[in-house]
Amino acid sequence: MRPSLRPDELLGSLRPSIAALPDSGIVEVVQYGMERPGLIPLWVGEGDATTPSSIGDAAVAALRAGQTFYTYQRGIPPLRQAMARYLSGVHDREIAPERIFITASGMQAITLTLQALIDPGDEVVLVTPVWPNILAALNILGGVVRAVPMTLTDRGWSVDFDRLADACGPKTRAVFVNSPNNPTGWIMPREEMEALADLARHHGFWIIADEVYNRITYDTDHAPSFLEVMEADERIVVVNSFSKNWAMTGWRVGWVVASPALGQVYENLIQYNTSGVATFLQYGAVAALEEGLGTIDAVRETCRIGRDIVCQRLGAMRKVRLARPQGAFYAFLAVDGETDSRSLAFRLVDEANVGLAPGSAFGPGGEGFLRLCFACSPARLSEAMDRMEPMLS
Amino acid sequence: MRPSLRPDELLGSLRPSIAALPDSGIVEVVQYGMERPGLIPLWVGEGDATTPSSIGDAAVAALRAGQTFYTYQRGIPPLRQAMARYLSGVHDREIAPERIFITASGMQAITLTLQALIDPGDEVVLVTPVWPNILAALNILGGVVRAVPMTLTDRGWSVDFDRLADACGPKTRAVFVNSPNNPTGWIMPREEMEALADLARHHGFWIIADEVYNRITYDTDHAPSFLEVMEADERIVVVNSFSKNWAMTGWRVGWVVASPALGQVYENLIQYNTSGVATFLQYGAVAALEEGLGTIDAVRETCRIGRDIVCQRLGAMRKVRLARPQGAFYAFLAVDGETDSRSLAFRLVDEANVGLAPGSAFGPGGEGFLRLCFACSPARLSEAMDRMEPMLS
Repeated sequence: MRPSLRPDELLGSLRPSIAALPDSGIVEVVQYGMERPGLIPLWVGEGDATTPSSIGDAAVAALRAGQTFYTYQRGIPPLRQAMARYLSGVHDREIAPERIFITASGMQAITLTLQALIDPGDEVVLVTPVWPNILAALNILGGVVRAVPMTLTDRGWSVDFDRLADACGPKTRAVFVNSPNNPTGWIMPREEMEALADLARHHGFWIIADEVYNRITYDTDHAPSFLEVMEADERIVVVNSFSKNWAMTGWRVGWVVASPALGQVYENLIQYNTSGVATFLQYGAVAALEEGLGTIDAVRETCRIGRDIVCQRLGAMRKVRLARPQGAFYAFLAVDGETDSRSLAFRLVDEANVGLAPGSAFGPGGEGFLRLCFACSPARLSEAMDRMEPMLS
Repeated sequence: MRPSLRPDELLGSLRPSIAALPDSGIVEVVQYGMERPGLIPLWVGEGDATTPSSIGDAAVAALRAGQTFYTYQRGIPPLRQAMARYLSGVHDREIAPERIFITASGMQAITLTLQALIDPGDEVVLVTPVWPNILAALNILGGVVRAVPMTLTDRGWSVDFDRLADACGPKTRAVFVNSPNNPTGWIMPREEMEALADLARHHGFWIIADEVYNRITYDTDHAPSFLEVMEADERIVVVNSFSKNWAMTGWRVGWVVASPALGQVYENLIQYNTSGVATFLQYGAVAALEEGLGTIDAVRETCRIGRDIVCQRLGAMRKVRLARPQGAFYAFLAVDGETDSRSLAFRLVDEANVGLAPGSAFGPGGEGFLRLCFACSPARLSEAMDRMEPMLS
């Protein structure tokens, strides 16, 4: 019999930063509540609609056609070309296929970009609250986070741009901005994007723009994008994903738009992380771009109805404070007298049988809030509101 | 008009280790030759058979059933259970599902494990020649490689175990062993695995065992595995993939076997790298394990025939020196008078219209050799031999 090690001995043998990596504060609540009969889960960022069949059909056709071999590390040419046409149309300027790199999720688009940029000790300015995975991905690389929290006023969520500019300087390696923002629904105005891009040019830092929700908007066709305030060859990388716009969360396909000069770098990083995205999945993504544009409208319409229900119902609850989100598909609500969002999220599971995500998971500025995903059916949302009302009124 | 940066300015803004990341020395030759009409490509590690339809059918059924949402980060329970049954059967001992974590490729299984272990400056002992991606993945993390090259004698490839043991010590963070070995076909004997595991226990270092080819063997049902010389809770991680055994290279699904105590760590690392593997792909993998065992036999038979053709034909060529591989599906051949394998690989493209991989890509011990993948049809291999013969005789 050989010696076994105790869990603490094994964990103690890992990199300290990895052993200390926080579990996702969202997942913690999900695991607490996921087995409750009848629970309404509004805690993660996905709707309740399956992927449209036309997208699945294209993937199936490619699979049946024997597209089961190693693939292009930057993405198959038809997908990069379809993406170039799509992006050029949305943003009304030419975005060449050579700028586009297909990744195994929007998460991977971020991870690979951080791998390219962040040495241990490098400083990254983050507009927060923000998706917890960004903070964790930086932890893995030893990056140092400098958070610039947004604030909620009567006019909604906003960033004090002077404060953001003050946080940026010669020590800044990169600024990470997620707009439209998960969890607040904030959209960075185009003028602020221009000003931040100018700052980046001045100081020589990078901008990583997470624009995963850029078609989930309510007053415009799409949110302002860094793609519209930059040249092709700049220190600005835009990351995105098929997950939200095309109801493809489970497919794990994302993309990067960056300078063509970084093509070999992304090719290498993809090769040495996962070695590409299944070709047949990529053909599904082509169909999403070419035939699935109606899907975006459908997703957006679901979200608009959801937003109206949630804002109206929550707005009428005495203890609740929230801003009407401009983009993305979350309500980010504060509850009077509740300062521990993790504990409140657990109580909502116990007492209302509704699953929300605790704001504390989203970094500085998030504590005291709860995130609710409204990208689902009106009946489900109304039922959730009914259940939460006694606790929040 | 905003200022554009030159490519060297952009690359100069990246982490130096990333900008300097070598392109895969295999891919370089592939890109040189891939458009040649009629070229016979034997340079990458995959056969010419598509994935069996029963595996595709299972994935399609899950996709059609609407399995398009976010998934379990450690892998869906049916896959972890099917894998536990499969591994327990192959290795004739119980391997619990709690030890199994599903990854987005064998490559990712390695990358995540290195992320968990390697801080910048940490020393990793590598038995070489080895798949170039391992060296690159270590580069990304700032790991320091200490190579222990195998040698080719009349009795085939082998590692001087004393030399391997001498390379390991208190400074060793991990030892990486790929057996059966890509590119040499070497199989580490069970006694050496036991001795290395004892060394690891003594010094407290980790073993990362890449056993991707462990069913591609010619004299046994499977190669010796670290799973057979370890307890569940040790500093030994075994990585593997569906790619080779089930003709699923393009699917990008792999797995890790590690201590259950590392479950939350792998869950986090998966979450923060790619956030899981598409559920419907995982159902394909379940079918591979449950119905596709005949596939392994078919792959192995193709490889056996390919090995016989290649060893017989190359063995008769005057300038060629090679050992009969014990496992994996590569011939690793030296050519008299040729010391620059990269240049020779380019010449074989130009003059024989056959694509091989240069040994120089595989780290210390690889220069002077070429790698040829024989996992394909006899006709294709015979034609390649005919074309190469004038250059190598």
